[in-house]
Amino acid sequence: MTDSWVNSAQRIGVDLHLELSGPGGRRAALTRALRDAVRGGRLAPGTRLPPYRSLAADLGVARNTVADAYAELAAEGWLTARQGSGTRVAQGVGPSRPVRRESAEPGRDARATPVTAPPRAHGPRHDLRQGAPDSSSFPRAAWAASYRRALLAAPSEAFGPGDPAGRRELREALAEYLARARGVRTDPDRIVICSGFGHALRLLFARSGPGGPGTSRRAGAAAGPRASDAGGVLRGPLGVEAYGLGFHRDLLAAAGVRTVPLPLDDDGARVEALDRERAVLLTPAHQFPTGGPLHPGRRAAVIDWARARDAVVVEDDYDGEFRYDRRPVGALQGLDPERVVHVGSVSKSLSPALRLGWMVLPSRLVAPVLAAKGEREGWASVPDQLALADFLACGSYDRHVRRMRQTYRRRRDRLVAVLAARAPHVEVTGIAAGLHAVLRLPPGTEASTVRAAARQGVALDGLAGFRHPDAAPGKGVTVGDGLVVGYAAPAEHAYGAALEALCGVLSSG
Amino acid sequence: MTDSWVNSAQRIGVDLHLELSGPGGRRAALTRALRDAVRGGRLAPGTRLPPYRSLAADLGVARNTVADAYAELAAEGWLTARQGSGTRVAQGVGPSRPVRRESAEPGRDARATPVTAPPRAHGPRHDLRQGAPDSSSFPRAAWAASYRRALLAAPSEAFGPGDPAGRRELREALAEYLARARGVRTDPDRIVICSGFGHALRLLFARSGPGGPGTSRRAGAAAGPRASDAGGVLRGPLGVEAYGLGFHRDLLAAAGVRTVPLPLDDDGARVEALDRERAVLLTPAHQFPTGGPLHPGRRAAVIDWARARDAVVVEDDYDGEFRYDRRPVGALQGLDPERVVHVGSVSKSLSPALRLGWMVLPSRLVAPVLAAKGEREGWASVPDQLALADFLACGSYDRHVRRMRQTYRRRRDRLVAVLAARAPHVEVTGIAAGLHAVLRLPPGTEASTVRAAARQGVALDGLAGFRHPDAAPGKGVTVGDGLVVGYAAPAEHAYGAALEALCGVLSSG
Repeated sequence: MTDSWVNSAQRIGVDLHLELSGPGGRRAALTRALRDAVRGGRLAPGTRLPPYRSLAADLGVARNTVADAYAELAAEGWLTARQGSGTRVAQGVGPSRPVRRESAEPGRDARATPVTAPPRAHGPRHDLRQGAPDSSSFPRAAWAASYRRALLAAPSEAFGPGDPAGRRELREALAEYLARARGVRTDPDRIVICSGFGHALRLLFARSGPGGPGTSRRAGAAAGPRASDAGGVLRGPLGVEAYGLGFHRDLLAAAGVRTVPLPLDDDGARVEALDRERAVLLTPAHQFPTGGPLHPGRRAAVIDWARARDAVVVEDDYDGEFRYDRRPVGALQGLDPERVVHVGSVSKSLSPALRLGWMVLPSRLVAPVLAAKGEREGWASVPDQLALADFLACGSYDRHVRRMRQTYRRRRDRLVAVLAARAPHVEVTGIAAGLHAVLRLPPGTEASTVRAAARQGVALDGLAGFRHPDAAPGKGVTVGDGLVVGYAAPAEHAYGAALEALCGVLSSG
Repeated sequence: MTDSWVNSAQRIGVDLHLELSGPGGRRAALTRALRDAVRGGRLAPGTRLPPYRSLAADLGVARNTVADAYAELAAEGWLTARQGSGTRVAQGVGPSRPVRRESAEPGRDARATPVTAPPRAHGPRHDLRQGAPDSSSFPRAAWAASYRRALLAAPSEAFGPGDPAGRRELREALAEYLARARGVRTDPDRIVICSGFGHALRLLFARSGPGGPGTSRRAGAAAGPRASDAGGVLRGPLGVEAYGLGFHRDLLAAAGVRTVPLPLDDDGARVEALDRERAVLLTPAHQFPTGGPLHPGRRAAVIDWARARDAVVVEDDYDGEFRYDRRPVGALQGLDPERVVHVGSVSKSLSPALRLGWMVLPSRLVAPVLAAKGEREGWASVPDQLALADFLACGSYDRHVRRMRQTYRRRRDRLVAVLAARAPHVEVTGIAAGLHAVLRLPPGTEASTVRAAARQGVALDGLAGFRHPDAAPGKGVTVGDGLVVGYAAPAEHAYGAALEALCGVLSSG
């Protein structure tokens, strides 16, 4: 670095956009531009301005021009100059809109407290909705350590345009982990990283891939079918469980995929009802939301169906890590890796905030999925991918899952015990795994109970909200009234009060 | 924590999925399951197995059953037991597919070196393609520091389901930065975080948003138009510059948006050609790829057109931070925040690997864009968002941009100087800003020069590849033959050789 003004500018590190125009000389123009920037709020109170020399070099004006402009604005009260801390925008000027002050030093300046506090989430008093892990248990220190280690060890090309398949480090770590912990049979080349289950569904079923046709060199080079105009990588009609996430159904409907509901019973989805569907979407480890595993006979049957019909099973392994009974339920994918798309994510095991998931694909689907994803990685953060690879490889992931499994198991036991004591008429089901239970209710009482809960500050869902629109009551596919109670979302200290409130709702209802 | 076996399991931290089935007792079943897992490659050589006690508790079998199974497999050579380091899968067993060993200790085990090295990118010998910053200059230490600081300071709710608008901390930091450095007029509520410019285009123009219709509570609650079935948030026909990224055109075509090319001249896009288009996509700070700023008269004219036609200007501010001449070019958005969608990202300023960008929206478009994005954050990593907020607020972003501006300016100067000396017949244009230059060539020589470059190991693009398909030569919209030379991608040490090779191509061609 030979230019000393560059060093100076770097030390201060403020970048300032000013347009010098209008009547008068450059000094007048600069004074006007700075005044407007402060008055209009573009420069917040407390913001440190660049030193004369640096701004002068940037604007191509004499140093004294800048010094004069600063002095004039300080005289007018817009700026303040203090020995040793440079020139700053004065307090109490500018519009009243909230702005965050920035500091010129590495790390936050102790004096520069944010004007606005981060907004508080205004959730319900007691949150027993399913869908998210305990956010207060995110393993911050271990994750930050993996992130830093991975970032510092990464090759430079990791910071260039990314491979849409995802980082190889992560795909290797996942292949090892999924084989070991979930019984998945794969190699890293059949794994494609995505942003979560919704992204996976879009990649599989979008009429034309998010990357658009013709954007991928890889698709042309690799063998396998391309996504056609009339359908995505996979086509409908798609069998789905009669109860599931409305978000997934909406997403499929938007992609023009017709979904056909499969009845549910105590052994899971009745896959014998599958007929001319081209694919089926299942939650084999833990039916969402009713809670049982798919019976081994049905696991075999759906694979047989897929082989006979040249169809594909999409396996949503959304909470496969969290099982509490002694009966292990491996991934359906292990039965036939060429017939099953296995999809998982860290959304339940770590946090939905990371936006990291994976698809384990039959070999023939790898090229079309990559074609749908685009020529470069457009979605998943590469540093986060590298961090997850490290987190898996160093054992932190296993440790965290084990710890959370114990936490959630205790919460489940507490839920069951409290209900047995306080609301013995309520049957609790779907408790062998996962982060939620289903409380069976007498017919016709679900809606009123959910409303009563809401009135008492308890947020939870009824089963009806998960029912497929074509699975009307009386058509043999419904599973009766019930509440879906998530026991993962509340922070540890808030769980007791949430259970208390739930019992209040159930005993008064 | 009261269960001592849990503590033991946590310390080891390996999670193992095994199915105990088949003939014989539980010991035989466990021995078989473990042997299959090793033989099939699910348990890689070197993998440490759980202690007896922990696995016994997991499977609900006696501790001696596990001890016996381990002993039998050790006798068969599948496992090795070492005093003090537990039982591990033996070396040299299992299938030959590459696996990454994991370590049971926090941090990587020194003995467990990865079997496979990260793949090397097999790029061209000299990479002078435009599109990415110098990946070797990513500010790893400063970014890791911001990431860690932000992660440890974040409220717990940051690890729950995210706000699709993006983290408020980031939107506040961006509002301040964009106002100060780019002349953008906004408040945090009009900023929506996305994964980059491609994601922004999808959100603006997709026929139905990626979140699908009906998935957003916010859209119903907020005022403003919804994305209709016949079009997205914005509709076509869309005016585009006659030269631009094919990726963007493909993406728009996939969304069913017709694009109409605008001729270019030395003052940028000839916006007076706009007529019945509903929107126009421009690169006002630095036309991509030809390289000039949009003339002030045309900036005013396109805003007048948008007002008169109730149309919208989409401003792609892809490299607005990198200007080298004395004439500042602020964001077009500053002229009329209610007529311009301003889109930027860190892909050029930091790295395309982060997948972080932003849209600054006219107020009436905020609700429809959020509706298109979905009810929860489905895309941008929240920890990365928090890290960028810190990186901006503590001044690291400004410091990095300043440093890179100097680096790229030196590279540009070197390119110009080398070409003046070695290929004086070549005119170099578009050099006032950005990370690439355009080398004008005699008519009819572009394709052969690109081919000659490829033969000599120099990767670069000709202008023709960026031309809109409807902008045929002779229709008054073409800008002649030329090479687009990116000077950012090579690492610092490789730049000299790349320039040498370029001169070789130009003097021989």
